[in-house]
Amino acid sequence: VSREFFQQLEAQETGVSVSLEKLIGKLVFDEHGLIPVVAQDAVSHEVLMLAWMNKRALELTLTTHKVTYWSRSRQQLWTKGDTSGNTQTLVSMSIDCDGDTILCKINQIGAACHTQRRNCFYLSVEADAKTVVVNAS
Amino acid sequence: VSREFFQQLEAQETGVSVSLEKLIGKLVFDEHGLIPVVAQDAVSHEVLMLAWMNKRALELTLTTHKVTYWSRSRQQLWTKGDTSGNTQTLVSMSIDCDGDTILCKINQIGAACHTQRRNCFYLSVEADAKTVVVNAS
Repeated sequence: VSREFFQQLEAQETGVSVSLEKLIGKLVFDEHGLIPVVAQDAVSHEVLMLAWMNKRALELTLTTHKVTYWSRSRQQLWTKGDTSGNTQTLVSMSIDCDGDTILCKINQIGAACHTQRRNCFYLSVEADAKTVVVNAS
Repeated sequence: VSREFFQQLEAQETGVSVSLEKLIGKLVFDEHGLIPVVAQDAVSHEVLMLAWMNKRALELTLTTHKVTYWSRSRQQLWTKGDTSGNTQTLVSMSIDCDGDTILCKINQIGAACHTQRRNCFYLSVEADAKTVVVNAS
């Protein structure tokens, strides 16, 4: 059913709109009730992190504009920055073609990564050298 | 064990390197043997899509530099562009802090999305209007 919904959207013209509530009802949450969320810095465009939302986290993010995830390790809602102060404010949100990924463009205060690095992707693969280098950010 | 490996890396100085083979052995593949991969345009920095790799797809991507995923719908390896011509050439790859997400910066030929749109995130959430708008790209 979700698949048909998004296949119908594919054929729509630019500018056509559908109900947000209806679309959320069709999103593809996995067997744990989660959907992956890519957080991208709205200004620098760097990809900061990937985390997961359940339906409640998504609704909270949309109503408060404070990006809220589901912490898989702590098994609880996690409003980013609640303890660290490194909040993420939602600038814009998009859904992908088959409704199983969310992209959030955000304003990041401080570091996105719990290691205090600017983003989480600081392990750089050097394919030819067959090594991975710890990067600054 | 994976968690400890990545926690030890957190404390390393910028520039320290580890074996790629060892790191791949510690990556956190899910219960289906998959890890999410964010594909970002290396030039425009737009996030093009999110897809999944298994260990073999990752190894093929690193050796051929042609980005290769695991298609969950077709249950087979999927070298992006093999049928459409819309190939992705790997420019750089990074791993996140806890080893459960891959970021690939790529050169995209043509459209990343199967709908022939430039990227897959063409459904724009208009939170205040409670609608989702079909976007051009």
